[in-house]
Amino acid sequence: MLETINTPQDLKGLSIEQMQDLAAEIRTLLVETVLRQGGHLASNLGAVELTLALDYVFNPPEDKIVFDVGHQAYVHKILTGRREAFARLRERDGLSGFPRVGESEFDAFSTGHASTAISAALGMARARDLMGDRHAVVAVVGDGALTGGMCYEALNDAGSTRTPLIVILNDNEMSISRNVGAVSTYLTKMRQGRLYGGARRAVKRGLRNLPWVGEPVLRGVSNMVGSVRRLLLGEHFFEGLGVRYLGPIDGHDLKTLIAVLKKAASSEEPVLIHVATQKGRGYEPAEEAPDRYHGVSPQDAAGTQGISNGKIAVAELIALAEKDIRVTALTAAMPTGTCLSDFERRFPERFFDAGIAEEHMITMAAGMAAAGLRPYVGVYSTFLQRGYDQLIHDVCLEALPVTLLIDRAGLVGPDGATHQGVFDLSYLRQMPNMIVASPRDVRQLKRLIQLSATVDAPMAIRYAREGDDMGQNLRDREPLCLGTWEELIAGDGVEILAVGRMVRVALNASVELAQRGSACGVVDARFVKPMDETMLRELAGKHRLIVTLEDNVVAGGFGSAVNEKLAQWGMAHEALNLGVPDRFIEQGRLEEQLSECGLTPMAVADAVAARWNQ
Amino acid sequence: MLETINTPQDLKGLSIEQMQDLAAEIRTLLVETVLRQGGHLASNLGAVELTLALDYVFNPPEDKIVFDVGHQAYVHKILTGRREAFARLRERDGLSGFPRVGESEFDAFSTGHASTAISAALGMARARDLMGDRHAVVAVVGDGALTGGMCYEALNDAGSTRTPLIVILNDNEMSISRNVGAVSTYLTKMRQGRLYGGARRAVKRGLRNLPWVGEPVLRGVSNMVGSVRRLLLGEHFFEGLGVRYLGPIDGHDLKTLIAVLKKAASSEEPVLIHVATQKGRGYEPAEEAPDRYHGVSPQDAAGTQGISNGKIAVAELIALAEKDIRVTALTAAMPTGTCLSDFERRFPERFFDAGIAEEHMITMAAGMAAAGLRPYVGVYSTFLQRGYDQLIHDVCLEALPVTLLIDRAGLVGPDGATHQGVFDLSYLRQMPNMIVASPRDVRQLKRLIQLSATVDAPMAIRYAREGDDMGQNLRDREPLCLGTWEELIAGDGVEILAVGRMVRVALNASVELAQRGSACGVVDARFVKPMDETMLRELAGKHRLIVTLEDNVVAGGFGSAVNEKLAQWGMAHEALNLGVPDRFIEQGRLEEQLSECGLTPMAVADAVAARWNQ
Repeated sequence: MLETINTPQDLKGLSIEQMQDLAAEIRTLLVETVLRQGGHLASNLGAVELTLALDYVFNPPEDKIVFDVGHQAYVHKILTGRREAFARLRERDGLSGFPRVGESEFDAFSTGHASTAISAALGMARARDLMGDRHAVVAVVGDGALTGGMCYEALNDAGSTRTPLIVILNDNEMSISRNVGAVSTYLTKMRQGRLYGGARRAVKRGLRNLPWVGEPVLRGVSNMVGSVRRLLLGEHFFEGLGVRYLGPIDGHDLKTLIAVLKKAASSEEPVLIHVATQKGRGYEPAEEAPDRYHGVSPQDAAGTQGISNGKIAVAELIALAEKDIRVTALTAAMPTGTCLSDFERRFPERFFDAGIAEEHMITMAAGMAAAGLRPYVGVYSTFLQRGYDQLIHDVCLEALPVTLLIDRAGLVGPDGATHQGVFDLSYLRQMPNMIVASPRDVRQLKRLIQLSATVDAPMAIRYAREGDDMGQNLRDREPLCLGTWEELIAGDGVEILAVGRMVRVALNASVELAQRGSACGVVDARFVKPMDETMLRELAGKHRLIVTLEDNVVAGGFGSAVNEKLAQWGMAHEALNLGVPDRFIEQGRLEEQLSECGLTPMAVADAVAARWNQ
Repeated sequence: MLETINTPQDLKGLSIEQMQDLAAEIRTLLVETVLRQGGHLASNLGAVELTLALDYVFNPPEDKIVFDVGHQAYVHKILTGRREAFARLRERDGLSGFPRVGESEFDAFSTGHASTAISAALGMARARDLMGDRHAVVAVVGDGALTGGMCYEALNDAGSTRTPLIVILNDNEMSISRNVGAVSTYLTKMRQGRLYGGARRAVKRGLRNLPWVGEPVLRGVSNMVGSVRRLLLGEHFFEGLGVRYLGPIDGHDLKTLIAVLKKAASSEEPVLIHVATQKGRGYEPAEEAPDRYHGVSPQDAAGTQGISNGKIAVAELIALAEKDIRVTALTAAMPTGTCLSDFERRFPERFFDAGIAEEHMITMAAGMAAAGLRPYVGVYSTFLQRGYDQLIHDVCLEALPVTLLIDRAGLVGPDGATHQGVFDLSYLRQMPNMIVASPRDVRQLKRLIQLSATVDAPMAIRYAREGDDMGQNLRDREPLCLGTWEELIAGDGVEILAVGRMVRVALNASVELAQRGSACGVVDARFVKPMDETMLRELAGKHRLIVTLEDNVVAGGFGSAVNEKLAQWGMAHEALNLGVPDRFIEQGRLEEQLSECGLTPMAVADAVAARWNQ
């Protein structure tokens, strides 16, 4: 039957039973495609009925549906003309793993990071009201994303003007791993019906009085997961935010979902519908281990996975923590992704999961450092962007010893434009007092973490997901000194200064250039800030061309730091800055993205040779 | 009596009556000093009794008191050994207008931006618990700052682990101007006792059952501003966050304040005490117009105030909005500071105050733009840092036409390190699709805003608080084209490319250099991105030395953009990048700060001459 559904209009004539059959077909397609292509599985399996109900009740693209994070939007893609394209999920020039406005008119807003949907939807709802339109605006938000402060800011704003807006709280009691925070506990209590045992009658009465809830919905509500009495408490919490609360309702019961959504569609004020879903629903392995099936790697890549930098980093951090009781570890809802769950197992009392709340996490780390601890923050590069101001204002201003373990730095492959970790070198090096380092391989990663224990200042160590092992060299026995680079190959006329995993690329480019008859030197510029000024001055004096190489935007990055230093010294020196160009890099395999950016060994060799021969 | 108070210990023996006398003395000192020095008046007048009670009950520096924003920490400074130094408030090498760890051991954490205190305090409380200490940690947060999502993230986190922590909600029903948001309305309702008329008995019973609230406090609570029954609702809202709520209590009643704080000090879980205060209390003009007395300019500077760039920008924006109904204006609790209150008066339905919630504001603007509106965001440079990720992820990714009117850019004078707007050129120019412009004077500011109406992409227009008027020149009659610069003086061998208000500095430096016999050209580089590549290439071909001049950090700023471009073209060109150095610039007069950074005309002339003569 799925073959017949090309737009949400095609759902309108279906019966509940037919939609249930459709749900089963969609689950089969999801499991088959995501296991092959990689992507988010469990969250989409949990949202099948919810998405069917949304696309059944509402009329996108006129009605706007904004999926928060967007990792649960696969079903919506399948139902909106992208069923066949779904086979190329997360491929270059295929479908993005997230909603993208450019991909379909049915994607109302591009997402990827958490907790933005209510703000975007409120903007759309206000635009609608100003323009005198009448369509619905719906934000679909997970309970995990609700730990992000932006949701609260947006609800608070929507509640104050009572702008009509529908917020679906898709509560699966998980964000990526298990959920944290008091609100989460509270939502769970609501789901389990433990609170307010005696208030049933009052609530039924109250519910009848809601202008837009009539008897049919009331009956639907009576069939909810637990009991309607929980409504009282939910109302109290969200009432403080000025938002009408309804729920919890069973997110796999299409009939109730449709009835409640229909009523909500006619509401003249902001409404939050609390929908209880099961992550991984309908696929046994994912039901049993939803966190393992949150993000799935493509099957064909299994076995070819390299070394995990996160694993190595956290193992070294645990070693530090064994020796120093002041060491703590913080994450923003990413214990598994950052591998800090290993730390948590060893030192549960020194591990802190702040929720999807990078702003709070960074400032809390600053508070810990101000009080004498040595906090380590495990975070993905792209999500650290959320803490930009807190890094300057709370960490760097007083040069507090907070160490950032920045994972998923550089180009990230299939997650695409919203997840590229390509801005960090630029934004971190502009912060006074911040030390910025990036290891060429796992050996150096360990040494940088050891070094961080001796540094009394903010320090960022950034690395890609997969690590390299370049073997031991003699200098590895010397201590790693802050702000020093290491020349790996001596050059003759041209020298490549490379950062992090680009060192390997530089070495390979150097081999290629040697075959072409040019002797190109390679320096491991492991510290982006402070730089090795002694070595840079010497190299600039010796070589005609200085090449910088980084998997970060050229704008304001490592290369521009080198340029600034040369300018400061009054050296009119020829430089070639290689890095990520000034545009968003879409999903694809890492090699494809590196190629697009001219960051493969061959492309680097070509660029150097072209400049050299000018 | 104030003369005898040098540390909080000196308060311990005082009677309530003596403390009331002290409060009066403190108010006299506050009014006299702040009217002379400039600074935050109304908020400090409102917090006199609260601060006295805090320093009476707690034992700083052992107990940690973190003031959110910190603009209400003057009384604490006066009571902690800085009474005499207070005469030099906000002066260079004098007292900072905000808490600074380096200034006194009694300042537990440096603040300046809103909504950070609970996160920092939670970090300190967790550090305390890990180290087995027993001291209290107190965060003092205004009701305005409570609209910021970080507060919610931190309360949610604190509530989930029930870490002992005292949050004082200093509720004066204002942030800087009147407050916005549903929670604010809700707090006001609580203050006014309109809700839950019939629940008094239940609450008294509930209150008695709280482990740490005994009869004495219960009596104190009975003397609260309104009635204890409001507690029920307050408890419900904050209970959702896992935090014990108590209040509201009268923030000018020392006896009750002290009783409640003493009890809170022994609590084994997070507590929020809702304290109702009056902004401007005790100084009639400030009581009557608290927003006018929020931030006060020094009296001696009155009359010397220049043109307000904000006024000019908003007037031009209003003109645009007259012609285009799609134009909306957004602020994050800064209608007065950004002058958008003028817009609000003209177009109330198209004006949106998001609360102190820059993240939400930026994404809401993106939502509006995605829905076809033309949103303009009025924001201070330093606070826009909060929206860094949202700018990349929600605005730039889809190149949505959101225009940023960035006020208080560059060095800002007495507000000091936490408020310098010196990072924006660096962080904005690294974002793909973002246009970055800065006008040299008010005439150009108007033309840039006119241009923004024709541009279908994200655009940032950044300017300092005070504008310049450089008079009309012939080219002003031509339309201002995107990405073009303007050469104001032709040079011979050396050319200064200056951004925004630095154009005036460059012109003056050029005059100085002419007197020394060098003909230095000056270009108004009004677009930092995209740059005027044609002109840059021509200039680089013609002149030996290219000087860049900006009131932004050199790291990654406009100068580095010029360097990158020259490197890209393979031009080994000599450059001199002048701008703000890589350290935090503390409070002082603007001229002192410019001088410290080498950005006065004379310093620029000297730097150019020194390089020229090398």
